[in-house]
Amino acid sequence: MPFIALSDAHQARLDARSGRVTGPTANLAPGHVQANLAILPAALADDFLRFCQRNPKSCPLLAVSEPGNPSLNELGVDIDIRSDIPRYRVWHDGVLVDEPTDVRDIWRDDLVSFLIGCSFSFEEAMLDNGLPVRHIEQGRNVPMYRTNVPTVPAGVFSGPMVVSMRPMKVAEAIRAIQVTSRFPSVHGAPVHFGDPSQIGIADIHKPEYGDAVDIGEDEIPVFWACGVTPQSVVASVRPEFCITHAPGHMLVTDLVNSRLAAF
Amino acid sequence: MPFIALSDAHQARLDARSGRVTGPTANLAPGHVQANLAILPAALADDFLRFCQRNPKSCPLLAVSEPGNPSLNELGVDIDIRSDIPRYRVWHDGVLVDEPTDVRDIWRDDLVSFLIGCSFSFEEAMLDNGLPVRHIEQGRNVPMYRTNVPTVPAGVFSGPMVVSMRPMKVAEAIRAIQVTSRFPSVHGAPVHFGDPSQIGIADIHKPEYGDAVDIGEDEIPVFWACGVTPQSVVASVRPEFCITHAPGHMLVTDLVNSRLAAF
Repeated sequence: MPFIALSDAHQARLDARSGRVTGPTANLAPGHVQANLAILPAALADDFLRFCQRNPKSCPLLAVSEPGNPSLNELGVDIDIRSDIPRYRVWHDGVLVDEPTDVRDIWRDDLVSFLIGCSFSFEEAMLDNGLPVRHIEQGRNVPMYRTNVPTVPAGVFSGPMVVSMRPMKVAEAIRAIQVTSRFPSVHGAPVHFGDPSQIGIADIHKPEYGDAVDIGEDEIPVFWACGVTPQSVVASVRPEFCITHAPGHMLVTDLVNSRLAAF
Repeated sequence: MPFIALSDAHQARLDARSGRVTGPTANLAPGHVQANLAILPAALADDFLRFCQRNPKSCPLLAVSEPGNPSLNELGVDIDIRSDIPRYRVWHDGVLVDEPTDVRDIWRDDLVSFLIGCSFSFEEAMLDNGLPVRHIEQGRNVPMYRTNVPTVPAGVFSGPMVVSMRPMKVAEAIRAIQVTSRFPSVHGAPVHFGDPSQIGIADIHKPEYGDAVDIGEDEIPVFWACGVTPQSVVASVRPEFCITHAPGHMLVTDLVNSRLAAF
């Protein structure tokens, strides 16, 4: 028996650190904010920070580390970003070279960590409000699409916005806009609904990322800016060195989803 | 020179009371809440109060008077509801019998006044947010439609919801949902957008009330619950005696639109 009970979130990070957990984090520490990760060399970090600042719907920054410092006190107790995510992806010149469970051995003093909000947080709020989240109902990954909506460039970073899609009835879409507007730090309100071609999506049944989901006769697709946008933008720059989380393997933070609500 | 400066809103009411103003109130006392009026005998007032309570999107009650009492201190200084609206409509058994500028001579001790929020308030917020309000742009009355969406009945009162429509682009509709959600006491968020047939509207170009407006190729119709709903419901009951405001001739209150915002 421990003398001090750890929070579910802290325990999830320690389990990742020890290698006891190496899989996706979707059901760990319910109610806690999970975050996307991009780690870049300091030479690129300034541009990327400006990119995130200019594209807050796609790249809502929860925290940015000091160069070389693996802790992130804003997001939780005793975080070591080099070990507390279950699985990483390591990229050299834009090529995926490894998927380790720990990056302490390749850490550098010039690396800056960017933690970006994730739709898990607003999906919890949608479910709490009785709204459908089809890919969860169908046990699939959320469908994601590359659009023709440009992001605002910064330095070397530019490229189209990637969106995620959740189908629902019109009255549910109105409620979903209200519910997700409360969460600007995890993508916030939708960026589009209805006709997919208006944002350059050719076939709603063929997402570029994730899985297609069923759309009812009386439903419309509703689109949110997606955290895959920064990943896609970083990939196109082919930085000499970069670390991201493996898809679905997020940082579990001590922040509570409901406390992200802006109102 | 008066010793005490009256507010624009108080002045507008005194001008209506004196007969100096007998026309529509749309441009009077900018920034102030204007209200729809229904005056019913006490025998019907209890049912109607429950009807409003059960249908807050169509019938957002700003104030209800004591029976027989013509003042409404919640809505403004020195209000006399028998004279402070520029033009009334008097109904006997559901038939319009008069359109006087004053109802002091027909006042009764059993009359209860219902003051109901009006879309002027949220339209001001929409304009402040750079959103289009087409009927204002086109100098027309807002288009209104009878739907197949039932209200929740109370006593003798029942009937379909009436909606107003404002066309806009999808991104504007998302913003309009955010902006009008702040104003639950003046109809709040839309009740529908997109396909009009889903709420029983056969022809978007033929509103049952008001005027048709132009809808752009890249625009969708957005529908809000409308204060004509209670008027339509009251008319169908054909009460032995009833007073309403004449369309567009509202009570100008001392309340400020921006202070109605819920968040």
